[in-house]
Amino acid sequence: MKILVLNPNTSVTMTAEIDAAARSAAAPGTHIVSTQPNFGAAAIDSAAESYLSAVGVMDVVATQLAAGTFDADAVVLAGFGEHGKDALQEMLDVPVLDIAESSAHIAHLIGRRFSVVTTLARSIAPIEDRLLLAGLGAHCASVRACGLGTAEVDADPAGAVAAIVAEAERAVTDDGADVICLGCAGMAGVTAAIAEKVGVPAVDGVAAAVGLAQMLVGLGLSTSKAGVYAAGPGNARTHWPLSQALGT
Amino acid sequence: MKILVLNPNTSVTMTAEIDAAARSAAAPGTHIVSTQPNFGAAAIDSAAESYLSAVGVMDVVATQLAAGTFDADAVVLAGFGEHGKDALQEMLDVPVLDIAESSAHIAHLIGRRFSVVTTLARSIAPIEDRLLLAGLGAHCASVRACGLGTAEVDADPAGAVAAIVAEAERAVTDDGADVICLGCAGMAGVTAAIAEKVGVPAVDGVAAAVGLAQMLVGLGLSTSKAGVYAAGPGNARTHWPLSQALGT
Amino acid sequence: MKILVLNPNTSVTMTAEIDAAARSAAAPGTHIVSTQPNFGAAAIDSAAESYLSAVGVMDVVATQLAAGTFDADAVVLAGFGEHGKDALQEMLDVPVLDIAESSAHIAHLIGRRFSVVTTLARSIAPIEDRLLLAGLGAHCASVRACGLGTAEVDADPAGAVAAIVAEAERAVTDDGADVICLGCAGMAGVTAAIAEKVGVPAVDGVAAAVGLAQMLVGLGLSTSKAGVYAAGPGNARTHWPLSQALGT
Amino acid sequence: MKILVLNPNTSVTMTAEIDAAARSAAAPGTHIVSTQPNFGAAAIDSAAESYLSAVGVMDVVATQLAAGTFDADAVVLAGFGEHGKDALQEMLDVPVLDIAESSAHIAHLIGRRFSVVTTLARSIAPIEDRLLLAGLGAHCASVRACGLGTAEVDADPAGAVAAIVAEAERAVTDDGADVICLGCAGMAGVTAAIAEKVGVPAVDGVAAAVGLAQMLVGLGLSTSKAGVYAAGPGNARTHWPLSQALGT
Amino acid sequence: MKILVLNPNTSVTMTAEIDAAARSAAAPGTHIVSTQPNFGAAAIDSAAESYLSAVGVMDVVATQLAAGTFDADAVVLAGFGEHGKDALQEMLDVPVLDIAESSAHIAHLIGRRFSVVTTLARSIAPIEDRLLLAGLGAHCASVRACGLGTAEVDADPAGAVAAIVAEAERAVTDDGADVICLGCAGMAGVTAAIAEKVGVPAVDGVAAAVGLAQMLVGLGLSTSKAGVYAAGPGNARTHWPLSQALGT
Amino acid sequence: MKILVLNPNTSVTMTAEIDAAARSAAAPGTHIVSTQPNFGAAAIDSAAESYLSAVGVMDVVATQLAAGTFDADAVVLAGFGEHGKDALQEMLDVPVLDIAESSAHIAHLIGRRFSVVTTLARSIAPIEDRLLLAGLGAHCASVRACGLGTAEVDADPAGAVAAIVAEAERAVTDDGADVICLGCAGMAGVTAAIAEKVGVPAVDGVAAAVGLAQMLVGLGLSTSKAGVYAAGPGNARTHWPLSQALGT
Repeated sequence: MKILVLNPNTSVTMTAEIDAAARSAAAPGTHIVSTQPNFGAAAIDSAAESYLSAVGVMDVVATQLAAGTFDADAVVLAGFGEHGKDALQEMLDVPVLDIAESSAHIAHLIGRRFSVVTTLARSIAPIEDRLLLAGLGAHCASVRACGLGTAEVDADPAGAVAAIVAEAERAVTDDGADVICLGCAGMAGVTAAIAEKVGVPAVDGVAAAVGLAQMLVGLGLSTSKAGVYAAGPGNARTHWPLSQALGT
Repeated sequence: MKILVLNPNTSVTMTAEIDAAARSAAAPGTHIVSTQPNFGAAAIDSAAESYLSAVGVMDVVATQLAAGTFDADAVVLAGFGEHGKDALQEMLDVPVLDIAESSAHIAHLIGRRFSVVTTLARSIAPIEDRLLLAGLGAHCASVRACGLGTAEVDADPAGAVAAIVAEAERAVTDDGADVICLGCAGMAGVTAAIAEKVGVPAVDGVAAAVGLAQMLVGLGLSTSKAGVYAAGPGNARTHWPLSQALGT
Repeated sequence: MKILVLNPNTSVTMTAEIDAAARSAAAPGTHIVSTQPNFGAAAIDSAAESYLSAVGVMDVVATQLAAGTFDADAVVLAGFGEHGKDALQEMLDVPVLDIAESSAHIAHLIGRRFSVVTTLARSIAPIEDRLLLAGLGAHCASVRACGLGTAEVDADPAGAVAAIVAEAERAVTDDGADVICLGCAGMAGVTAAIAEKVGVPAVDGVAAAVGLAQMLVGLGLSTSKAGVYAAGPGNARTHWPLSQALGT
Repeated sequence: MKILVLNPNTSVTMTAEIDAAARSAAAPGTHIVSTQPNFGAAAIDSAAESYLSAVGVMDVVATQLAAGTFDADAVVLAGFGEHGKDALQEMLDVPVLDIAESSAHIAHLIGRRFSVVTTLARSIAPIEDRLLLAGLGAHCASVRACGLGTAEVDADPAGAVAAIVAEAERAVTDDGADVICLGCAGMAGVTAAIAEKVGVPAVDGVAAAVGLAQMLVGLGLSTSKAGVYAAGPGNARTHWPLSQALGT
Repeated sequence: MKILVLNPNTSVTMTAEIDAAARSAAAPGTHIVSTQPNFGAAAIDSAAESYLSAVGVMDVVATQLAAGTFDADAVVLAGFGEHGKDALQEMLDVPVLDIAESSAHIAHLIGRRFSVVTTLARSIAPIEDRLLLAGLGAHCASVRACGLGTAEVDADPAGAVAAIVAEAERAVTDDGADVICLGCAGMAGVTAAIAEKVGVPAVDGVAAAVGLAQMLVGLGLSTSKAGVYAAGPGNARTHWPLSQALGT
Repeated sequence: MKILVLNPNTSVTMTAEIDAAARSAAAPGTHIVSTQPNFGAAAIDSAAESYLSAVGVMDVVATQLAAGTFDADAVVLAGFGEHGKDALQEMLDVPVLDIAESSAHIAHLIGRRFSVVTTLARSIAPIEDRLLLAGLGAHCASVRACGLGTAEVDADPAGAVAAIVAEAERAVTDDGADVICLGCAGMAGVTAAIAEKVGVPAVDGVAAAVGLAQMLVGLGLSTSKAGVYAAGPGNARTHWPLSQALGT
């Protein structure tokens, strides 16, 4: 089984981290291929960067489809709360999993109330929105921010661990969470620290999405094409795929 | 990996069907062991039978724990909407999955709105309650009944397929569902018929729960013991486990 | 009018307290008969004990029905949040009241926002669930725990009063409650202390349920048999009633 | 025990009907006194008439308070969905029950989903609003209108019974109701017809409110004065009570 | 364009303040006429005073309609959360705007979460109710009280500014609000202080309602008469309009 | 006052229609300038096209900002339900209005329950999502589709009017709507037909957004920068603005 893992920002360092997290969750026989958009932002900390990243991952997939090189059995969109998953579900027949919804689903299976610990405070609202739209907000105790931007988490892993663990502790004590979801693709290394120091399970979204992707492929299930995820009507487009027009 | 599959009613015929459904979803290396309570009802079509079945599966697990023979890596509770899962989560350290929540989670991953097709109309309300409590009701388009009791589904598979497919069709056309969850453990054979005749994916709960159990074990995740699923305080009990007292 | 009051745990001390609370709310001409299951747990502080108690009270009623000795005009289930009420409603034609819903209804009639003060923190979630399912959660300001288990409340009434009053005070000050519901059958003695020290009305569930039972009987109303509370289909059962099989 | 029953419109015919319904639900020893405002509308079928009736019942109570003649143990406000109850709760120390909330509470106790059958379609929205604000909307299957105005129901009882029964039947069949609440004070005579022809219990609001008033008085409970129902700050008013200024 | 601004209490000082706030928001060519009821309360701090004010503004409009002198293009009801708007919508064909809903609509347009800062704590609940009924509660972060009654705000503007700014600060810091709505008609002078000291936009309800009234008139839109705001059936009334009967 | 109206698709015909609708709602002294993205889709009927259009309008604004030519007092985003508004709110200090939220706000002001009539059935779900996230879903009676794609509405105005009027009629009769929102920028011509044939007010989103933009500018209010709409942290981007990189 081949899983295409899409880092929605343009940072190749982040892609490498995500790739490692995905591989650690892959079963024997699962082939992980990770990549990132050909244009856009090096980190996603705003609505504008989120839209840009959505078009960036659409562009990666559209380019592969146009070239006839798309052969993944499932796609993992490794951005926590970014948009674009529904567009990929329209474009593809294989399952598409994003890391925000995936970790929330797993949190439901192993606890009663989960909290998300994300990067900056400005990302709290879009994550709450994503959970609300996905129908997964009722058991969310809180979405909390550790105060470090995506790039800072990337640059200072040790400091990030301390900040995230501290916030996870508050989520458990003040908000009543019994599971923590790590609200950023670059946080995979923190799960052990949370389990040890806070005493609750922590869910890494990339591992969660890879695990759920493998499960869906194993069960022979994929996105329903009878509803909102049916292929679009194909209105005329200019400059699409953009990366081709850009010559990247 | 060993998965203990618990049919909550006492019908050994039903246990055999559930066991077959579980095996069909098991990965190589997964060992499925299926069983049923030592007392209780032959089918579950009322609240009274639901409570009785909850105590029945608690009794199976308590007996194994007392005898030191419990060695499963995960437990699947194969009743759609029956109670007892939270009690097993208290009693055990390994993951416990029920088929109602499992199929609802998978429906979220592959569609936007799912409907459940269950047996009798009187089971609609408790299934709605279960989804509400699990925080999985927001994307539920409807819970519908095919009009056949659990035992009738068991006894007339062909008639059951026709009745379930007809109801699934209404769920798609009238309620806007794009995924169908089969609301009874004995309906595994219907998934292909629904996919073919109604054109939407159908999720069998037993397969869903086995798939999710394998995933959780693979990711090294289990029930949080920091919240409501912590072991109980151990108040004095009489006649427990009941099956021992009953001599069954 | 005869009201059967069911203590869902096996503690006869607790049955006596509940009986006294019920008698204090009974109108002239109301005959109170209180009893408890023939097997199960001495106190209910977990989901497992809740299921066991549900089957315990079902067993009491089924035994009386089988023997032709059931002659109550209404049944009060004196466990706060325990399951089993819906099963009794299926089994019986007379009104069945539980103390959690009864006290919540009365709280709505005399205030705008109520808080429940229960025993252990682990009981908060199931009480919230019960109110949610009953459609009575919207005006619930909070469910709080005094930190004492059911048995401890039973053993140290004075300490329990102090702990419950303190928590009631927080509910009023911090959560905006203007009515307190006592979230345990053994707390009837606290209502006067709360009214006096916290300045808000407190509702004892047993008194509430007896009052509502008398009212329903007075108005000639009972459980609708046209919906989910219709008698079940009577699937075959083994060892039922359990107490007969157990020889208790 | 004395219960003051307030018909919020000025129709003395309607007051007489309400008085009869209240008496039929009164226990021995309960004294029913019914009256109506000294000014306002002869029936309430609009928001404007609802506000006018609220001030009308406030005026009745304020006049009795000012004269020192108020001596009721409880007040029943016999308008279905009209405003004014919260104002009376501010003004009085004894329990105040309105017939909309009272019948909804009782419907919860004897069924799972209730429908209200009211008069004109234009009254549906305010009744839905009232249930929403009272926190009693979650189990409301529907609010339906029989198409007859308050005065028409009053004038043609037989025609009203037929129209109400027909609508109750639709509520049960189409909306899944298992209890019917009669959404108008003048409908008390219909309960037997609904029980007989539709097969579900029907709740008359006046009887429900009288029953709950007796219960609260019996339990020694009344409106909490620690929250929103505390007496107001007593800003200066002109022409109050209005009926005194009007010389009625 | 002529806008009739109705102060729902009888204080002419307050009418003058409201008139000034309305004029400051009026476009060139908009004619503002402000008035108050002929009877009722000098300030509105209770449910009773709210009903009385609703009838007071209905009386003003009914008197003008009866005399044929009503010629406004829109009506602004300048009470925050008071009742009566829906009655005026029934009575009139021109748009009717109240200041609570108007400021909430504008808050949605310029922020994500708004808080209301009102007068006394006892007004919090009715404002929450109003927002809930208007379908505008989902983005409300909190309703807070500055602790001063309507008359006190009127009497001590400087003290009121300090108290309101302090509460606005808590709304932003503790509740996550990014817009403040001033929850009283007499607070127009505080918007600049909040913007300057708290750093978020503040919305004065009177200005908001005048702005929205001008917009609706400009677009040629008015209240739909096809639903709940259709003119009422005209049941017989006594003493109406009340002010005529009172001879005020 | 200058308002920049952004058609999110690339159709210049559609831009011209939107421009005309905007001008018809503009007050004297308001200057309307309409434009469209330099790349993307000719119509928006899928999630993929929605993301692409969001980036397209971001690109238009970013290009103007970079060139120092942005001088609008407000921006209207003329796509019904498309994404991008929140990104523009981050990027700009002036008010940004989209036509979906604008028409929903106005519908609240003039009715109790509104329905949206959009183009294709596949657009229903994203519009429901948009209203839910905006906190404007509670009074939405339904979102309905007329069955014609954006381009078809554009191409056959007369057929579109008939289809939209028919669906509006169903919304009023079956769903209880008393206001219709036109769920597409190209539908401005239909408002008169709906008012005349269906008897309820119809709201054109472009007019609504222009009206609200003028009102906000008139009141001196703009997007709060204290919350989620603060300017982003400015992570490094490649190829941005895209149109510059594309050389369009």
